[in-house]
Amino acid sequence: MPKGFSVRPSRVGDLVREFAQFGSLPAGGVSRLCASPTDGEARDRLTKLLQDVGAEVTVDAVGNQFGLFRLTDDDTLAPVMIGSHLDSQPRAGKIDGTLGVMAAVEVGQLLHAAKQQGHGFQRNFYVVNWTNEEGARFRPSLLGSGVFAGHLTEAFALACRDDDGVTLEDALLAIGYRGTDPRPPIPDFYMELHAEQGSRLEGAGLQIGLVTRNWGAAKLDLVFEGEQAHTGPTPMSKRRDALLAASRVIDGLRQLADANPDRLHTSVGRIVVSPNSSNVVPDRVELTAEIRSPDDTFLIEIEKLAQAQFDAVAQATGVTLHRQNRSLRLARTMPETMVDFLEGCSTSLGQQPMRLDTVAGHDALSLIGICPTALVFVPSIGGISHNEAEATDDADMDAGTSLLLEAAFRLCGSSHTTWGMT
Amino acid sequence: MPKGFSVRPSRVGDLVREFAQFGSLPAGGVSRLCASPTDGEARDRLTKLLQDVGAEVTVDAVGNQFGLFRLTDDDTLAPVMIGSHLDSQPRAGKIDGTLGVMAAVEVGQLLHAAKQQGHGFQRNFYVVNWTNEEGARFRPSLLGSGVFAGHLTEAFALACRDDDGVTLEDALLAIGYRGTDPRPPIPDFYMELHAEQGSRLEGAGLQIGLVTRNWGAAKLDLVFEGEQAHTGPTPMSKRRDALLAASRVIDGLRQLADANPDRLHTSVGRIVVSPNSSNVVPDRVELTAEIRSPDDTFLIEIEKLAQAQFDAVAQATGVTLHRQNRSLRLARTMPETMVDFLEGCSTSLGQQPMRLDTVAGHDALSLIGICPTALVFVPSIGGISHNEAEATDDADMDAGTSLLLEAAFRLCGSSHTTWGMT
Repeated sequence: MPKGFSVRPSRVGDLVREFAQFGSLPAGGVSRLCASPTDGEARDRLTKLLQDVGAEVTVDAVGNQFGLFRLTDDDTLAPVMIGSHLDSQPRAGKIDGTLGVMAAVEVGQLLHAAKQQGHGFQRNFYVVNWTNEEGARFRPSLLGSGVFAGHLTEAFALACRDDDGVTLEDALLAIGYRGTDPRPPIPDFYMELHAEQGSRLEGAGLQIGLVTRNWGAAKLDLVFEGEQAHTGPTPMSKRRDALLAASRVIDGLRQLADANPDRLHTSVGRIVVSPNSSNVVPDRVELTAEIRSPDDTFLIEIEKLAQAQFDAVAQATGVTLHRQNRSLRLARTMPETMVDFLEGCSTSLGQQPMRLDTVAGHDALSLIGICPTALVFVPSIGGISHNEAEATDDADMDAGTSLLLEAAFRLCGSSHTTWGMT
Repeated sequence: MPKGFSVRPSRVGDLVREFAQFGSLPAGGVSRLCASPTDGEARDRLTKLLQDVGAEVTVDAVGNQFGLFRLTDDDTLAPVMIGSHLDSQPRAGKIDGTLGVMAAVEVGQLLHAAKQQGHGFQRNFYVVNWTNEEGARFRPSLLGSGVFAGHLTEAFALACRDDDGVTLEDALLAIGYRGTDPRPPIPDFYMELHAEQGSRLEGAGLQIGLVTRNWGAAKLDLVFEGEQAHTGPTPMSKRRDALLAASRVIDGLRQLADANPDRLHTSVGRIVVSPNSSNVVPDRVELTAEIRSPDDTFLIEIEKLAQAQFDAVAQATGVTLHRQNRSLRLARTMPETMVDFLEGCSTSLGQQPMRLDTVAGHDALSLIGICPTALVFVPSIGGISHNEAEATDDADMDAGTSLLLEAAFRLCGSSHTTWGMT
């Protein structure tokens, strides 16, 4: 960047704190479920924020929100895009996806200012806020970026339902974000800044993580069907208890992870029990199970083992168990030359970047294979995430934003088209 | 009974079917949670039904609904009371408590008719519909009869909250059943007709069961507190997963029952998970566990064993587990002379009564020790209960109602005050 166009200290942190008002919780966190009224308020504020600093805002059919900073009148070259998401888990921290969107706004504003000061660019720049990254209200996760990348259709995404049966389309219509604008072109370069949600950077005393690989993840929606009965007189041997079966599956999945330390994470975070009355043997349970590993072959092997466990539990409890949905994200490596490029930018800023994996999914993963893509981490204090206590120091947010600014400045000024990175 | 005053064939069955319209479900069952709008409609219909056949209807502070048939102007002797409850589980059959209320209405109407034909009685007769027998919407169960019997205070009952935080008092106010009428006197005799909810009568080919004993039951509201975290990057060893702990407790309770066939029933029918999102390790789980046994000493011993299991699970998972509420119903025998009396009435009608236990709780259990109390069972087809498929033949309903009519006729005509049965 030319002199004078550097990230303003704590500007991104201040924006993150400002946006925490949308769905704010008493302990400092946020609950901003995708396409909820509070998500709508946050989106409205983002629109205003972008327009105030010179961007043109559009919304596509699935609610992805784009802010175009015109850095050149020549549209020949594909743009650069940076962003993340404003939706959150039900009781989340304020950092998560908001950091990545606010960093993108700061980068866009500074590039735009540089252009107005006469600097010449060869590409335009987009800020993006992806719809339903979290997969909390609507499943699967990475829905908006998945549609943008062509992995999912618009129709599929809009028809997804929350646990109350509301479709994403109706939820977006209700907040005014079922857009009709055309999607921007696939960018030549997509970058995302995110908190690490782990403790490796903090442990190493470093500010910048360059993600080289994601863990694979299989997410399974399981349905258990037993028989409703009285919890009192019904003989134990006659009960077909869907919650008992689900409990054994939850415990069994954990045991698989415990038997495979460091290369397998499993969890069940969501369970819906019916009729859920203390006096009634439950006849139906739905749950979502996650299996994650850096090794795809091992992941598939474990999924088969888990399925054998499910079958054994079903047999022993007299409960029918079937898999309603399965989404599989394979482990992939991020484009090497893009990591190298960011490493160069980072060291030129005097930073010491560290290469690491991401276990969690991020919108950047949707773009791998579609365009050159990079994911940059900054430290999470205590490794805490999906928790109101989630926190990142302003200085670390600034360091990450500075790296993105440097990279975006170079990329927007360059006519290299593919970098051979896809 | 004098000639001509016998139970009208299928009258009780017809009333049961009529009341199934209040909260009707597609598969023939009902969902009529305590103090819900549909419960209000059913109560309104009961009021009308009682008034049409000559009863005076009153409602006490906790919503218990009474129908007084004045059979004598002399209030010296305590009345006879028969009833049950109109509330249901969330997806229940149409029989359950409704049968007992409708049988009581038929008995009252026939006694009233006998009086109008000149027959002399020495006691008045009450029909009762108790509030919140099920314990489905509000816990504990047997709430209305527990207040009437003096086991619980009105203030305690009215302050009970459902899972949405609504108090029983507000729910009753909303349907117009937060009454202000004085409670009727404790009756000298309370009787209740109920479907067996088991298969012993059906297996023996008999119509009438006389309950001699109830199983004891300990009901525990447990709270598990872990730590909210991301299901992806959070190392397995650092997770404090409240749902994992709850799952192990559910499985452990079942294993206790399996190790003690025929003398121990355990179950968990209700679980509330927070934040309940697929991507988040749950930090809080509430559940209600039930432990039932005919042997109180054994029940307490098992409860201690279960507590040791809970502690071990908490230790192993890093989750805090505490017991929020505990309700204990001891195993008790029904008054022997009352069973003998009903046996005499039953054989005089040409029936073959069978003595048996109740595993489930019923309002009659609240009255044990307070007044002479009896509980009469008729067959449940297939032993099915707390299920939309619950059913009882009209002929069996008529047999049970005939027994209650015979007993009520004799009791209302007698000046014996205590029968030495309490």
